[in-house]
Amino acid sequence: MYTLYTSPGTAGMMVHQLLIELGAPYEMHLLDIKAGDQRKPEYLALNPNGVVPTLVIDGKPRTESSALVMLLAERHPEGGFAPAPGDAARDDYLEWMLILAHSLQPAYRLWFYPSDLGDVDHDAIKAGARAKIEKTWDRVEARLSDGRPYMLGDAVSALDFYTLMLMRWSRNMPKPATTWTHLAAFAARMKQRPSWRRLYELEGLTEWA
Amino acid sequence: MYTLYTSPGTAGMMVHQLLIELGAPYEMHLLDIKAGDQRKPEYLALNPNGVVPTLVIDGKPRTESSALVMLLAERHPEGGFAPAPGDAARDDYLEWMLILAHSLQPAYRLWFYPSDLGDVDHDAIKAGARAKIEKTWDRVEARLSDGRPYMLGDAVSALDFYTLMLMRWSRNMPKPATTWTHLAAFAARMKQRPSWRRLYELEGLTEWA
Repeated sequence: MYTLYTSPGTAGMMVHQLLIELGAPYEMHLLDIKAGDQRKPEYLALNPNGVVPTLVIDGKPRTESSALVMLLAERHPEGGFAPAPGDAARDDYLEWMLILAHSLQPAYRLWFYPSDLGDVDHDAIKAGARAKIEKTWDRVEARLSDGRPYMLGDAVSALDFYTLMLMRWSRNMPKPATTWTHLAAFAARMKQRPSWRRLYELEGLTEWA
Repeated sequence: MYTLYTSPGTAGMMVHQLLIELGAPYEMHLLDIKAGDQRKPEYLALNPNGVVPTLVIDGKPRTESSALVMLLAERHPEGGFAPAPGDAARDDYLEWMLILAHSLQPAYRLWFYPSDLGDVDHDAIKAGARAKIEKTWDRVEARLSDGRPYMLGDAVSALDFYTLMLMRWSRNMPKPATTWTHLAAFAARMKQRPSWRRLYELEGLTEWA
């Protein structure tokens, strides 16, 4: 049994989708970020940084969305969502998970929360973040341009749920990720999964369905 | 046989130290970043973003330093530098690797290269980056405060080489990571490893030996 603390449309989304895909038993708690639920003492006791998601695994609260999807994929090898160590696709899997976690996701943080950096020019920060984000989409587009349906080839992996979620975050940006041809086809393909619709229902999402 | 392209003291450092620790056969190419070696066509052919390190594995150039240490630790399980999937320490390992890769290392990028974000107020960006970096050191200090010698407990792992390298990067900052008591003891312990001295010799490093 897992317990997921998340907020609709946040980085918890890919963790949630993977739980649904795996058919793993879990309990969900939706936090209202605008109401400041993430700053309440009971949540800070689980996640001292006051960010979502938190996934309680074996009674222990865990953070970092990218680590959580890697952990879930490993704990449920029957799902086939992560190549095992020694598998030919393992190097690609780890390299791309870390490209998204290290180079792409932090740039979104700057785009959405430039005030994280304190007293700075928000427009300038956002312009810089946008350039970083678009540069990474160029790389993903290049990867998909050989016609592969998914990031690792023919099989869906945790990496695809991560890519899809990060694409969704660009939907109101000046140049959404769907501007790139192969990325648009990838998203259309991924959105056909029943887990995506179920995720929308459970989190009460509507945009970019 | 691995081929490492790096530059002294950069993110390639932990990859290099792990290669030394593992006794893995490798060839090293040192790039002179100030001279612009990373922008030369022959390097861009390997690493289109022009960053270090690149590690050629099975003839294929790979990037993202955090992915590279995870890959090396997995490919050489005899070194014992990564708990295997299913191991009790696995969750901690992945969670902390991703805390460093997603929350700490990108903040250093902003500290050292605020111009990455374009036409922005460098001092303001650096102040924001510094706050993020120090917040993560608070978390690492809290983790080490139970007296554990290494990040995962009694056994050294890839996570420790990563932590040590990121600590070193703070040496000229207003509040170096060694300001924190347990972090200072950790660094002193890690620096006693012969691989650290060998790394310094091979990369021609002197500071923070």
